[in-house]
Order: sequence, then C-alpha cells, then structure tokens
Amino acid sequence: MNAPVMEVEVSLSERSYAVQIGTGLLESNPALLSLVQGRQVAIVTDTHVGPLYEGAVRKLVGAQASALITITLPAGEANKDWAHLNLIFDALLQAQMDRKCVIIALGGGVIGDMAGFAAAVYQRGVDFVQIPTTLLAQVDSSVGGKTAINHPLGKNMIGAFHQPRLVLADVGVLRTLPAREVSAGLAEVIKHGAIVDTDYLQLTEQTMPRLLALDPEALSAIVAGSVRIKAAVVAQDEREAGLRAILNFGHTFGHAIEAGLGYGQWLHGEAVGAGMVFAADLSTRLGLLGADERERLVATIAAAGLPVAGPRWDAARYVELMAVDKKAEQGTPKFVLLDGLGKTRVQRVADTPLHATLQACSTAALN
Amino acid sequence: MNAPVMEVEVSLSERSYAVQIGTGLLESNPALLSLVQGRQVAIVTDTHVGPLYEGAVRKLVGAQASALITITLPAGEANKDWAHLNLIFDALLQAQMDRKCVIIALGGGVIGDMAGFAAAVYQRGVDFVQIPTTLLAQVDSSVGGKTAINHPLGKNMIGAFHQPRLVLADVGVLRTLPAREVSAGLAEVIKHGAIVDTDYLQLTEQTMPRLLALDPEALSAIVAGSVRIKAAVVAQDEREAGLRAILNFGHTFGHAIEAGLGYGQWLHGEAVGAGMVFAADLSTRLGLLGADERERLVATIAAAGLPVAGPRWDAARYVELMAVDKKAEQGTPKFVLLDGLGKTRVQRVADTPLHATLQACSTAALN
Repeated sequence: MNAPVMEVEVSLSERSYAVQIGTGLLESNPALLSLVQGRQVAIVTDTHVGPLYEGAVRKLVGAQASALITITLPAGEANKDWAHLNLIFDALLQAQMDRKCVIIALGGGVIGDMAGFAAAVYQRGVDFVQIPTTLLAQVDSSVGGKTAINHPLGKNMIGAFHQPRLVLADVGVLRTLPAREVSAGLAEVIKHGAIVDTDYLQLTEQTMPRLLALDPEALSAIVAGSVRIKAAVVAQDEREAGLRAILNFGHTFGHAIEAGLGYGQWLHGEAVGAGMVFAADLSTRLGLLGADERERLVATIAAAGLPVAGPRWDAARYVELMAVDKKAEQGTPKFVLLDGLGKTRVQRVADTPLHATLQACSTAALN
Repeated sequence: MNAPVMEVEVSLSERSYAVQIGTGLLESNPALLSLVQGRQVAIVTDTHVGPLYEGAVRKLVGAQASALITITLPAGEANKDWAHLNLIFDALLQAQMDRKCVIIALGGGVIGDMAGFAAAVYQRGVDFVQIPTTLLAQVDSSVGGKTAINHPLGKNMIGAFHQPRLVLADVGVLRTLPAREVSAGLAEVIKHGAIVDTDYLQLTEQTMPRLLALDPEALSAIVAGSVRIKAAVVAQDEREAGLRAILNFGHTFGHAIEAGLGYGQWLHGEAVGAGMVFAADLSTRLGLLGADERERLVATIAAAGLPVAGPRWDAARYVELMAVDKKAEQGTPKFVLLDGLGKTRVQRVADTPLHATLQACSTAALN
C-alpha cells in the first residue's frame, strides 16, 4: 500500500529545500527531474544499496541528465575516510564533471556524509541530492547539511555544512533494511521526541510495533515528524552555533562508545540509544529529570531494540574518549541534558555525578 | 621608512573583514590580538617563511592565546595536496584544538590555500587569519576566501569558499622575497588594472621601477589598490557565480601552462603573465582589443619581468590541458577577454581564432 507523499520545507533563505516523505518517490519524481535537467549527474552509493536501488535512480534521471555516472563505495562506517572520499573525486574528475554537476547520495548516513562532503568541496561546492535509504538517515542525517569524514583521531572531524537541494525519503526502501538498522534509526526518533516534543515521543511509543514491522503509513508519519523537528532546529541554527547542539543529546556518550569500540562495531544509532540512557541518568542525578521520566525513556529505547547500557569500561576511559569529541571545548565537554522530557539544557557537569553515571550505565558485557 | 597603515573592508555582511596594508603590522596589532584573545591558535607556515617570520607572529599572539602551536609544511605548490593538508589536521587534533580555535596562515598563496581550506573543513569550519608574505598573496589570493588543494587530475579541484576574519598585508615582509616572486605578484596587479581600472594600470606602469625595488610606499599603494579592486568584485559575487569570473583573466591559459609543465616549474604569476598575453592576443583577434592596447599590456608584463609567451606546445596540447580546467563547463571553456583595456567580456570562442592565438603565443623555448 502506498502512503501519501508529504513534503517538509527546510527554511534557510536561498539554501531552502524540500524533503519529500512517502512511497514511490523513485518511480517518478518531477522535482528531481527538473533539478538534474541537462546537467551532469553522479550517483554515489555503496556495495549494499547500489544493487538494490541504483537501477531505479539511474532509470529515473538517465533521460534528463547530460551525463550519468555511478560511483560505488564499499559499505560501512570504517570506510568513511579520506581514501574513499578521494575515489569520488577521482571518478568526478575522470568523467570531467563540471561545477554545475549534481551529486546524488544514495545510501545511508555514511554515503550521505561522504557524498555530501564531496559535493561541498568538489570545485569548491556543487549541488547534491539526498536519497537516504536507512531510517537513521531519513530521520536525521539527510536533513540539515552536516557532512563529514572521520579522521583516525576523531569522528566527523573533517567536514562542512553543505545543504542538499532536495531530499527524497522513500520509506518503501526501508523494507530491505536489516532489523538492527531499523532499531538504530529509531534511536534518533526517540531522541527528537525526548528533546523537544513529548507528543511525538508518545506517537513513537504507540506506533512502535508498526514501526518495527515497517508499516509504510506509520513510518511516513514518524519520518515526517522527525524531519519537521529537525528542520525547525536547523532553520534556527544552521551552523550549530547554539540551539542545534540539543540534537547531540546522547551523542557525547554515544561517540565515546563508538570510538572506544572502533567505528562500525555498534551502529551509530545503537551507541546513541545507550548514550541517551547515560544522558538521562545524568539528568536525573542533577535533579533535572524525574526518575519516572528516565524510566519511561529507557523503556522506549529498550522497546526499539536498542542497548540501554554502554560497554563495561571504567570512568577514566569514557572521560578520555569524550575529551577529543568535537563538542568538547578545550577539553571539558558540555552535555545536553533533559530538563524534564521535551526540554533540554546544555551545560558542563561536575566530576562526581558524571562518574556516577559512567559507572551506573556501563554495564554491558562485550563478547 | 614605515608606510602608513591603510585598511580596506571586504563587505560580505556577517562575513565582512578588514585587510590591513602597510608596514610594522606584525610588531603590534590590536585587531589580531582581540581576535585571538583566550583562544587556541595554530600558526600554519612553511619551511621558507617560518624561519623568517614565525617568531614575530608567535611573539605577537603568544600572550593572548590560550594555546599556541606552529605547523610547518614543506614549501612549494607541489605540496599543496591532501597528504600535506592532513598534516595540519593531525597537528590540530593532537593538540585538541576545538571549534573555536583560530588558524593563522603565514606564507604565500600555497599556505593561504592550504591553511584556509583546513580552516574551512576542520570540525566543519573554524576562523582563520591571513598573513600573506608574498606580493602575489597580498594582492590576490589572501582576499576573497577561495581556498583549495590540488588533485593529480587538476589544480584547485578540491576546496571551499571560506572567508578569513582578518588579513594583514605587511609590505615590509616582501624585502625577503626573491625578485622572481615579486614579478609573479605583479602579474595579478597588472591583471587588476587590465580588467577594470586603467588608472590603476597606469599607476602600476609609472611606479614599476619602485615596485621592483620594493619601495614600501609604492608597494603599499599598489597592494591597497589591488585589494580594493578585488574586494569590490568579491563583494558583488562571493561564490564566483558570475562577475568574479573576470578575475580569471589570463588564468585559463595560465593553468594550462602550469599543469602542462608540472606544478611549480613556473610560478603561478609567471604562468598568468604569459596567460594574459594569450588572452589579449585572442581579444585582439576577435576585434575586441586594439593592437596598440595589446602591445601596451604586453610591454607592461615584460617590464614586470614576466614571460610574454607560453611553452612551445602545439594547439592540441593546450586545448587538452584547458579542457579539465575548472572554468570549463562540459568540456568547452569560456574565456575572459578584454573588451578594450579596463573592460571584460566572458564568452566561448571558435576554434579558428583560438588555435591562431595558441600558435602565435606559444613561442617560449624551454630548457
């Protein structure tokens, strides 16, 4: 059954763009066709997604583009590095793609980050389109223009703010997504509700079984809700000067987990799921969040199939891993805390509650 | 003798910044000190410039910065690549430089491009200051926010528009500049006059002997004039959507020469000097520029000590080298032509006059 197509506008004056949400978006798409009309197009995808959907995108834009190439990268966060980014530049230059070319990112967050960053710096900036194929990318990374690659010394350390011209979030493509990745996407959905919108959090809780069963209507509603929340935050703070930091709820801890385990061991959303438990625990210790609210959030994270504890490391290891995080300023990280569900505050935290949280929440045994 | 300090504003709304021109700018500088106050600072310089001026900059900002590191790269355009850019990221991350750090580019155009691009993408963008130490960088590359590195398949193919917060053009530092590099800088000075301002072209012609003798007052006047011209063009077209293309006068040919010889064989300004002769010749063949005007321009280029012919290659080689140039759109390059001295037009050109120009102007024997 097809869900109706919804459209959310991300308002950034001359950089504004539409996010389409629904099913069948890759079968015909006037917005995409009008954008690529007469221009060189490069589809950037990976070895997982390419075989599934590259043909559909190629069929869709092939007749309109003046030239069309596909660049297929090896799948996985471990490849979100300069060497693989450079494969994109090599292919663009070999095909003599000019400054008016359009790059289409077809894949999950890693492909969106890499293709988006390539678009940000190729010939000092070309247009790009996001076609996110994971729930995580649809509800989060494809909207807002943050692009980056990893550096051996830190995640997302090299990047740019570069807004897409169009985002196509086709929830139909999620039918091929492994269950683990559906859960990972729900981490950001839960986050959006927790930080700004308890009604949306409630919708997430109520539709959780349908979401896990990949019901297109439930997914469309949830993706549209997340995109609306994220678009509103981004519109107020495109370059993460202030407000946008609240989107990092759970991420300071989550990034530490990802970095400590080695990228790709846990999915980003899994690390964020556990990271939100840390952040909620810390909020409760600081008297900002009721124990009942914390338990409600932890239960929702668990219902989504996500981990609710971090790896069993001592506090010092967590602190060290967080110190290099990009939200850290001169070594002392700020934390996004819940000031009740649906409200946030960003602040530095004393060592005593922090260490108590690190100890209480780092109980997951690793195989 | 100290020349009076002049200040030119580059007007780009919230990205506006001042360019200071004069002598003694590195001895004391309230604008720079107020910018770096309490922030982490990284000086990026090279093996030529570092030993001469890094101490002065370190002394100037050291007391105000919360941390101060120096990153010294090997000098030369051949090193304007990803591997060397990555040395900057390595050092910034090892020193745990945060998103509020300030990068100071201390050097010529290569250092400005690399440090500026590093600043554009480190943690998705940090502030930077240009302290250009070559005439070329002072009159051209330090103003306008174009940053980039080279790719094996093309010059400046990977980069960003990222405006500095402050530019300090101290003409006193030019006393250590080799004569060949002074000439290279004069290429852009001549270009600025040729494309928009015949009064400025005349000032350049009249003060040429004093400029070549590095007279601080003559240099200050000429640098300020060039910065004013460039600032006016950039203010109207920050991201090179249209007008800014006129600054590429001589550059399509010049880049072909640089790429064909291998970067670093001719200085960029030398290639632009010869490139302007090609572009003027082509303008005359198309009936846009009088032969007398062309001769006046060629004479000025020669008086500056610059080459007035390109390497002795056949037309096909030039065409091939130009095809990948970033000003090329889908293979057919547009040319910036002189429509009389002080006026430009940008257009595609038929093969016949182009080949005639390529043949007529490619007479320089190479050793």
